[in-house]
This record gives sequence, C-alpha cells and structure tokens, in this order.
Amino acid sequence: MSKIRVGVVGCGAIGREHARRIANLIPETELVGVADFFQEAAEKTAAQFGVKAYASAEELIHSDDIDAFFITSSDPSHAGYVLEGLKAKKFIFCEKPLAQTSSDAEAIIKAELELGKKYVQVGFMRRYDRGYSEMKRIIESGEIGDPLMIHSAHRNVSQAPGFLSNSAITQVAIHELDISRWLLDDEYEEAQVLEVRQSKSTKGDWKNPLIVTMKTKSGQRIDVEVQCSEAFAYDIQCQVVCEDGLVNLPDPMQVTVRKDAKIKKGLMTDWAQRFIEAYDIELAAWAKSIAENGEPNGPNSWDGYVACCTADALIKSRETGVPEKVLTIDKPELYK
Amino acid sequence: MSKIRVGVVGCGAIGREHARRIANLIPETELVGVADFFQEAAEKTAAQFGVKAYASAEELIHSDDIDAFFITSSDPSHAGYVLEGLKAKKFIFCEKPLAQTSSDAEAIIKAELELGKKYVQVGFMRRYDRGYSEMKRIIESGEIGDPLMIHSAHRNVSQAPGFLSNSAITQVAIHELDISRWLLDDEYEEAQVLEVRQSKSTKGDWKNPLIVTMKTKSGQRIDVEVQCSEAFAYDIQCQVVCEDGLVNLPDPMQVTVRKDAKIKKGLMTDWAQRFIEAYDIELAAWAKSIAENGEPNGPNSWDGYVACCTADALIKSRETGVPEKVLTIDKPELYK
Amino acid sequence: MSKIRVGVVGCGAIGREHARRIANLIPETELVGVADFFQEAAEKTAAQFGVKAYASAEELIHSDDIDAFFITSSDPSHAGYVLEGLKAKKFIFCEKPLAQTSSDAEAIIKAELELGKKYVQVGFMRRYDRGYSEMKRIIESGEIGDPLMIHSAHRNVSQAPGFLSNSAITQVAIHELDISRWLLDDEYEEAQVLEVRQSKSTKGDWKNPLIVTMKTKSGQRIDVEVQCSEAFAYDIQCQVVCEDGLVNLPDPMQVTVRKDAKIKKGLMTDWAQRFIEAYDIELAAWAKSIAENGEPNGPNSWDGYVACCTADALIKSRETGVPEKVLTIDKPELYK
Amino acid sequence: MSKIRVGVVGCGAIGREHARRIANLIPETELVGVADFFQEAAEKTAAQFGVKAYASAEELIHSDDIDAFFITSSDPSHAGYVLEGLKAKKFIFCEKPLAQTSSDAEAIIKAELELGKKYVQVGFMRRYDRGYSEMKRIIESGEIGDPLMIHSAHRNVSQAPGFLSNSAITQVAIHELDISRWLLDDEYEEAQVLEVRQSKSTKGDWKNPLIVTMKTKSGQRIDVEVQCSEAFAYDIQCQVVCEDGLVNLPDPMQVTVRKDAKIKKGLMTDWAQRFIEAYDIELAAWAKSIAENGEPNGPNSWDGYVACCTADALIKSRETGVPEKVLTIDKPELYK
Repeated sequence: MSKIRVGVVGCGAIGREHARRIANLIPETELVGVADFFQEAAEKTAAQFGVKAYASAEELIHSDDIDAFFITSSDPSHAGYVLEGLKAKKFIFCEKPLAQTSSDAEAIIKAELELGKKYVQVGFMRRYDRGYSEMKRIIESGEIGDPLMIHSAHRNVSQAPGFLSNSAITQVAIHELDISRWLLDDEYEEAQVLEVRQSKSTKGDWKNPLIVTMKTKSGQRIDVEVQCSEAFAYDIQCQVVCEDGLVNLPDPMQVTVRKDAKIKKGLMTDWAQRFIEAYDIELAAWAKSIAENGEPNGPNSWDGYVACCTADALIKSRETGVPEKVLTIDKPELYK
Repeated sequence: MSKIRVGVVGCGAIGREHARRIANLIPETELVGVADFFQEAAEKTAAQFGVKAYASAEELIHSDDIDAFFITSSDPSHAGYVLEGLKAKKFIFCEKPLAQTSSDAEAIIKAELELGKKYVQVGFMRRYDRGYSEMKRIIESGEIGDPLMIHSAHRNVSQAPGFLSNSAITQVAIHELDISRWLLDDEYEEAQVLEVRQSKSTKGDWKNPLIVTMKTKSGQRIDVEVQCSEAFAYDIQCQVVCEDGLVNLPDPMQVTVRKDAKIKKGLMTDWAQRFIEAYDIELAAWAKSIAENGEPNGPNSWDGYVACCTADALIKSRETGVPEKVLTIDKPELYK
Repeated sequence: MSKIRVGVVGCGAIGREHARRIANLIPETELVGVADFFQEAAEKTAAQFGVKAYASAEELIHSDDIDAFFITSSDPSHAGYVLEGLKAKKFIFCEKPLAQTSSDAEAIIKAELELGKKYVQVGFMRRYDRGYSEMKRIIESGEIGDPLMIHSAHRNVSQAPGFLSNSAITQVAIHELDISRWLLDDEYEEAQVLEVRQSKSTKGDWKNPLIVTMKTKSGQRIDVEVQCSEAFAYDIQCQVVCEDGLVNLPDPMQVTVRKDAKIKKGLMTDWAQRFIEAYDIELAAWAKSIAENGEPNGPNSWDGYVACCTADALIKSRETGVPEKVLTIDKPELYK
Repeated sequence: MSKIRVGVVGCGAIGREHARRIANLIPETELVGVADFFQEAAEKTAAQFGVKAYASAEELIHSDDIDAFFITSSDPSHAGYVLEGLKAKKFIFCEKPLAQTSSDAEAIIKAELELGKKYVQVGFMRRYDRGYSEMKRIIESGEIGDPLMIHSAHRNVSQAPGFLSNSAITQVAIHELDISRWLLDDEYEEAQVLEVRQSKSTKGDWKNPLIVTMKTKSGQRIDVEVQCSEAFAYDIQCQVVCEDGLVNLPDPMQVTVRKDAKIKKGLMTDWAQRFIEAYDIELAAWAKSIAENGEPNGPNSWDGYVACCTADALIKSRETGVPEKVLTIDKPELYK
C-alpha cells in the first residue's frame, strides 16, 4: 500500500510536533509539505523535514500531492481551512476547536454530509490517553453498570497571554465537554456555569475557579471544577460513577518518597507532558483507520460541532445565571 | 471534682452504647439512670448498668440526681425533651436531629437564649472523626489558603424500613449539611437538590442517586453525591479545595492484597463501624468541656437549627426545581 | 458471672494504662489493687483508681482477693513474678519480655506444664492490631496460597536512655520475632543479624541500621530492616509473600494534601499512638477468653520462650557473623 | 551533521523493534542494513525497512557504510560480535548479556582499553525508565541522605522454554544486579543466593522463589526477591532506604475501580509493556551522546563485565551455600 501523503497547515509548536510524528513515527504516513501564514515559518519547517514549503494553505490543500492535511494554525482560521479541504475531498485532521461558532461548525457538517463520508477528525486527544480509554473500556464492559454521574476537575498552574474569561470554557473545559459525552455515550440536554468564591491567588483577570455542569438527555450529571490558573499542579481528575461501582482516572506515575514523617509523591505542572503519549496514539490510530478503512474513526465533525454548541450554552448561562439548553441540529445518520 | 451525673433517655442501640461510654469510658461522668417510652426497656438497661430506671423521661430530666442527660429516643420526641431539659437547666446531649422542623429548633434557640448560656450539644459526631478534624486543622492553619469548594459523596449500601424519599436529606445528607459548614466556617445562602439519572440497582422506592448542593454567603460551593442505597460500599468522601491546595478525607485503613494481576483493598459496608471511634472522642470532649468550662463546646443548638433550615430549603427545592434560600433568624451572639 | 479480680504489679505508664482498661473498659474485669517496687508509686496509683495498694508484689500475687495479675514492672523482674504467680495458680498477663534469658523462660514453661494448664499470656499486642489480624485471616483463608516469605521493617524516630546495641533485638525486633512466627504458623530453624552500612544520622552509640533475618523449619525466609532511631517516621511495614499473591500491612489512616505540585500524607512519629487500639482489643480478648473458657488464648509462655531463644541466636550471630540455630526444647503438647 | 549509519545484527523481535526505532524514531540515526544467522530473516527485515541485507554479521560490522551496530542476536554470539566491532572501531550497542562468562567480558574490556575510548553500550534499559531515573535523581540530590539498603522484587508470570535454574540469575536478577549498583553508586563486595521454601504453584523445573543478596564495598545491602514464574503479576519493586528517608519505584499508572466493597487497580502481566518507554529513551540518549560527544554515555563494558562477575559469584554461592566474593579486575580509569 502506498503511504498517506500529508501536509501541515500551521508551523507553530504543535504543528511541528505533528509534522515530526507524520514524518518519523507513523509508518502509514509521509510528510509532503507545510504551509503557514508567515512564509518564513513554512520554509524553516520545510527545511527541517526536507519537504516542500507551499506558498499558501490553499495551495497545499488543493495540491495533487496531498491526500490529507493537518490544521494547526490559529483558532479563527480552522473552519475556513476545513471547508476548503472538504471542497478538495482531502482527509482533514483539525486541532480543536473545529470552529469559532456553532454556525460555522454546522456549515462543516453540511458540507461533509453532501460528500456522504467522514473526512474530518478533530484533535480531542484525551480519548487516546491510556487512562481515559481504560475507563471507557470498563464502562462499556458493563461490569460496573450504567454511568450516572461524572465528577471531574481541570486545574491549571498558569495561562498564556490572551487568555480571556470565556477561555475557561473554550480552551479549558472544552476537553471535559468532549470527554464526558464520550465516556457517557449520550448527548447534552443543558449546561450551566456556576460562580464560586474567587481565589485571591489568581494573577490573571479571569474568573477562577468556576464550576461547569452539564446534564445529558438521559439525566446523567457532570460537574467540572475549573481552575484556570494558580492551581497547586496541573491536575486532571475524572470519576465516573455508575450503578454498581465507579472508576477513577489515575494520577501520573511518580515515585514516592518517605521523609520528614510524610509520604510525598510528585504531581505535574507542565500540561504539555501530561498527555504527550496520547498524541502519539491519536495520530497512529488516525493513520491506521484511513489506511485500513478509508475513513478516520476518531472524534469527528459532529463532536467538534457539539463542543461548540455546548460552549455556546455555557457562555449564555454565565449571563443568565441559569441552566441553558444545548441546542443542536438533529444528529445526522453519518455520525451515529 | 465530683462527676457529672448523667441520665439517658431512650434505651435503643445507640442509647445503650452511650450509656456504656458514660458508665465506663469517660472519667468525668457517672451513669445515674435511664428512661424509655417502654418501661421494660428502661428497666432492662438499668439492670445491665446497675443504675436506676426512671418512670418517665420527664422524671429523669427533672430529677435532682441528674446534671445532664442524653436524648437517644425516637426523632419526633427530641425537641420536646430538649425544651424540658432547658426548663430544668440541665446539660443536654441530643442525637441528631435537634428537631423535626426549623420552627421547633427555633423555639429551642429562644429558650436557650433566655438562659443566656449553652446547655445543648447536638450529636454531629463526624466533627470528632480523626480524618475530618485533621482536615479542619489543616484548613485553619492557612497552609493551603482559604477554602472555596467542597466535593463530597455519601454512599450507602442499604436503608432500614421507614426510609422515605426526603430521608435522603434529613437522614443521609444531614451529615454533610453540618460538616461542610463547619469545615468552611461560613453559613449557607442557598441550597438545591439536583435530579440525576436513576440507578436501576436501587431496591427501595426512593430517589437514588441525588446531588445535593449548597452555596455559602461568601460564595463557596458544596456538592454532595448522595447514594441512599445499593452503593458499592459505605463510602464517605470529602475534598475541600482551597486557594493553594486541597485536602482529602482518607479511606479507612485496610490491608492491600496483590493477587490475580490486581491490587485490592477492602472498603466498609457497615456504617456503624466507620465512625465508631468518633463517638468515643465526641463524648470524651463533651464531658471534658463541661467539667473544665461549665459549658459544652461541640455542635450546639444553632448548628442543629441551621441543619433543619437547610433541610427545609433542600426539600422545597425538590418541588421548585431551583435553588432555594436557606432562611434563618440572625445568628445570636451566644453562638458566635 | 462474677468479675475477674485483677491486680497490677508495676505502676509506670504502661501499668497505669492497663489499670485504666481493667477498671473502666473491660466489662469482665475489676481492678482490685496495685503494687510497685516503690511503695509511693503504688499508693498514688491506688488512690487514682480507688483500689488497694499492696505492700509488695508478692503480697498482691498471693492475695485471696486476686484472680489474675498484670506484670508491668521492670524487665528483669518479669520471670520471677511469673513463677510466683504460677505457684499461686493465678492468671498472669506479662508484658514482654517473658524473661531475660531463655533458661528463665524455660523454667516458666516447666512450672506451667506441671500445672497442666495455660495461666500465662505475654503482651505481644501486635497480634491484636486490625492490620496484622486481617493479614492473618487472609493467609489462613488460603486465598493467596501458602506463605513463603516476609519482608518487614521496623523504623524508629528515637530511643530512650538505656538503649544498648542488643536492644535492637530484644526491644525492637522482638515484635517481628513474634509476629512473623504467628503469621507464618511455623517455628524458626535459624536466625542471623546482618551488618549494614551505618547511618551518619544516628545519634545513639548503637548499630543502626541492621538487618535481622530468620528462616523457619519449612524454609520460609523473614527479613526485618531495623532502624533503631533517626528514621523518617515511626514506620512499621510487613509484607507476607505467598504462593499466589501477597498481603501488606497498611500505613495508618491519614488525610492527603495536594499542594506545591505534591501529594502529601502524614506518617506517625509517636510509637505510642500506632498500636493504641491493639492494646484495648488485646485486654478485652484476654478477659473474654478467661471468662468464657477458663484459660487465656493469646500469646503464651511458649511464644515468650521462643522469642527469648530467637533473640539468643541473633545475639550470638552478631558475634559469629553467620546464621545461628534457634535452639529450643521440643514443643510441649500443652502449646500445640 | 550527517546521521549515524546503523546496522542491526540479529533480526528477532527485539532486533526489529530496535531497527524501527533507528529508522523512524531517532532523528540522529539512519538504518543502513541488517544481518542474521538465518539469511532469510535478514532479507525479510531488510525488505520491511527498505535497507540492505548483509550476507553475514561480519560483513555488516566491517562495512564502510556502517558507523555503529546493534547486537540483538542469540546470547552466546554477543561477545564475539562485540570484539569484532571493536576491531572495526564501530560503536556497539549490545543487548544484555555482554558475554556468557566474565573472562569473555574481560577480553572486551581489554580490547576497548587498547582503543582508549568507550565504544560499547550494554542494553540495561531500566536505567532509562522514568521511575528508576527519578529515584537516581532524588538519591543524588542528597535530600534523603546517603543510600544504605535496597529492598527489591522481580516477579514474573511465566518463562519461555529454555529457562534453566541459573536463568533466575542470568536472565531475571541480572536487571537488579545492574540497577542496584547504579542507584547506590558503589561496587559489590559479595553476593549470595538464599534458598526459600518453594512455591507449589511453580510449573517449571527451576527453583522458585529465591532471594538474591549483595553487599557493596561500603556495606550497603541489597535484597532481591526473585519469582521466576507463576507470580500474581509482572511486578517490579524497588525501595532505596537512605539515612533520612526512602524512595519507592511506583507501580504502573492504572485506573482504580471501586466495586463490591473493594478498591481495585490493575497490574501488568506482560513484561514487554512494562519498560517499553524506557527503550525509546535509551536509544534516543545513546544516539544523542554519540552525536554530541562522540562517545556513548550509557551502561558500558565495565557494567556488563561486573554483571557477569556478580552472576558468577551468585551461581557459585548456590553451590557453597555461603556468600561469595564478587571478583573483578581493578576498575580501569576509562570507566570511572
């Protein structure tokens, strides 16, 4: 079988990381070229991997040398490149978010529906983390009964400049919006942001902490403690409570030290380390599913769209102070 | 110093347990007599401990041989005996609840205020558990900053006959209503019961599970997962999230076994074992505070009253579906 | 049934603690009197509990008012009082060690054999600790197969004046000498002390650390890491490795704190707290077995004797540098 | 910089895994060719990676197209290929063992000393495991004082055909022989195998379990519980006890499940998964050290030689029943 010829649009840190995986790590893929809004960045990355620097994202997307491409450019450019890629009938791996608004995401859904096949995968990499995927396996095995609730926490040590108050939802809780639906295998009915007494430790001008809650159509409840910054560690917790038991996401593996009448174990502070292995598994699975089935089998346009709609409801709920309906179109057959 | 002469009103299991502690375990106390609605029960217990069987609770309460008494009779009788005890100016240790309604509890507050001194202690024994009291110590030390949130769970294996749907609040969550206020050192602003997808494992005709939430005046949020029955164990969890860290209630000490490619640790199923040591510490502290300061220093009438008012708000919230204000009188100086 | 009338010989801290349990905690016992080498100490303790101060241990032991007595006096006096008690046919609870030499212990065995009944219990309280007794239960259930090895550690923070180099064996490892035999249900074949690189942190003039090892007649191996002092905590570890699994003694229950990118849990430093509950259970079981069966059912003279013989072998091994046989008489029928 | 041109001698499972890493994962390396005793195996692997199949190991080793090569052939062939590689002045990565006998390993040392530079790295991959390397970092930081003892366990679920009684040392404990020296930063004085009561669960005709012990020149003691097979899991434990604290190797990260009144966590049974990440890190570090410093900086010929000498002493100790000296030549300057 010939290799999947891949391009990368967006040559920042995450783009170069994915380029390295495509070029070196994944046997089914071949890195063909890169593009960036800044041509110099594209050329530097192209040189690093010995591939072509395209003059523009559009040129890369429509090139006959490209079977699939990654979108790792700035958030506002995502939806446009996805639509362009669908026109060209290319496989698209789009880092989250799929779109800035739910209507943009809906346009992607419609374009993909017209093609009648899944072309798009969204970069919700947590689904590929060994901890979360083992939780999913246990829930699906039925050994602890049906899932009823999720208690989770997403705690961050710091945020980069440009972080705004709603980024708590669109950049932080977004991961829990996706992983909770996936673990519970249900869609959201409503969502709400709860205000909490604020931490004096917070250095940014965002709200911190917050509690984000969702309710699914079958009545399952999810609560997410969100600490945008100044938490004691980069600490990700997830507990799924089922009818006959519960399952917990583990803390990262760390040595324990006994000293000064204490048992001590380290926690991570760098988020980039926490799910690093998940990215490798994610890209390998993406390539394998295309090579074997001619279609990606990971989080799809619908998942990206629902994340946008849920974020919309949460942001509205911050204004109204009450739970807001998560409004979506009916789920098309393609995504069931 | 002469001993505190104690009577016990209500000779059921818990009454006899307290009688044993008063008679044998606590150096500052002496068991003088017992009473029960069923005279035969009183006489049997009296014989067991070699003390007097009073003809009625009232006779015991007003006896000159009694300095203090315990109320371990049926729930509806509590408030009446407390008021009777206040008339007699006796120290009263009343098992929870203090009263069936918040207005009955308010009457107790008023009677005690007229006496100008604290006579009543309510049996919220969790405050004396080594785990919770260590959590309180750590929070008060300031080493992890001010408390912002509590995530907790109260999971039960079964319930005795007579358990009703609102018992989830008045008999189960009642413990978290008290312990959360105590850990956070604040009063409740509002409270809400959230409906959750129901467990098919539930054998009783109550709602199971539920989520109970409270918000304090300073904006701290508490969530309590309540499983009335059919949980995987008697499992009590409490996590207080503070500005600079968090503290967790530990699981009970249990050996770990490695076998069949698993690490296994036991959990309790019998609630009576979980806090058994806390009762010993509670009674010892009660006796010591009266002996040394002439006044009990544990959970008082105000704490019992607030628990009633919070339960009222929660029960109302089950009907309205929205958060309800926790309505109380202003906190009298005596309880500050 | 009438109560067991108990005397206490030796009014130090542990003696007064046991007196309190006999007087207040154990329903089957009654404290009748006390004695001490220093008459003033006896009188003070007698006054505290409202009982008789005997003029001497011998007077107490032979008094017709005494059914049973506790030996909590200085170590060198133990064996003599036990022999005296056997002459008087009294039940004897002797704190460890039973004797200073194995020949003294052997004399006790012989005296007891002549009486044809067990009168003596030795204070190896760890057998009553909830952790160790749960380990024993699991091993005996057969669910993890036959036991093959024990890895254990006994780490101390400090030692009182008078601690000598061999005290590492006779006062520290003595607990593991007993508990290991009990867990494995076998007798020792040989024993050895291994020298280890010494810790610069040690403040006393004893050897620290040491490794103590034993081999049973069926070939089971036990290793005990002994830190006499300056350890990071009072830390007791025990792991029994069986054919199909293993079981671990748990650390004491402690809250966990997350702070500064670490998970932290406290350890004890005060040994007196670690097994405090075991003493209560031990005395209750002793009284119950005498009341119900007319004979104590805890660690007996044979157990005390074997501990002496094993300590002898270990001390000899320190001189010879090789494993030494644990030499005992044949186990009499009475102790099988 | 040009890439390190690498060949692989031995095309079994581990050889092909390393070939994949060299070809795809490590940026500094390029896979040039492979060889195998069975030419067909070499050709199949060569085709898989699109590289040359050499006619023999010798041809590969002496080829001008090769800068470095991996030895992943059968154990008895290792030493010969290493010596051949040293003649050709090639960098050699030799999977353990370096040699079958200590005299063969000594010959390698001498050949390398004549070249005056380190060419050889031995595949003790545990040094690259995140757990062990964090333990090393903590010990070297001095925060818990000097190391005094190691308690460790190496438990296996099964063994492949061909496993002999001494394989417990040369194939199982060999890992602890290396990692213990490395953690303690000292050389062995003596070593001993202790016989233990045998497990009835053992299906092979080897001794199981055993205890392997070593003593270093500074008196540090190491004990290794060795279960060759039929253990409850593939369970690797390591605890380094230092003057002021201790550090423990963690169990692998696994979700925890609460069910049936138990907390359960999985353990691995497949050894190939346990240290899989360590291999990636090991090869990356090997390539980086050669690329940057012109010399490998991992476990070297001396480490491979000492492992052989220690295994010799252990095997001799099985016959004599006493500790045997670990006899080595003086450590050459090159390896200090």
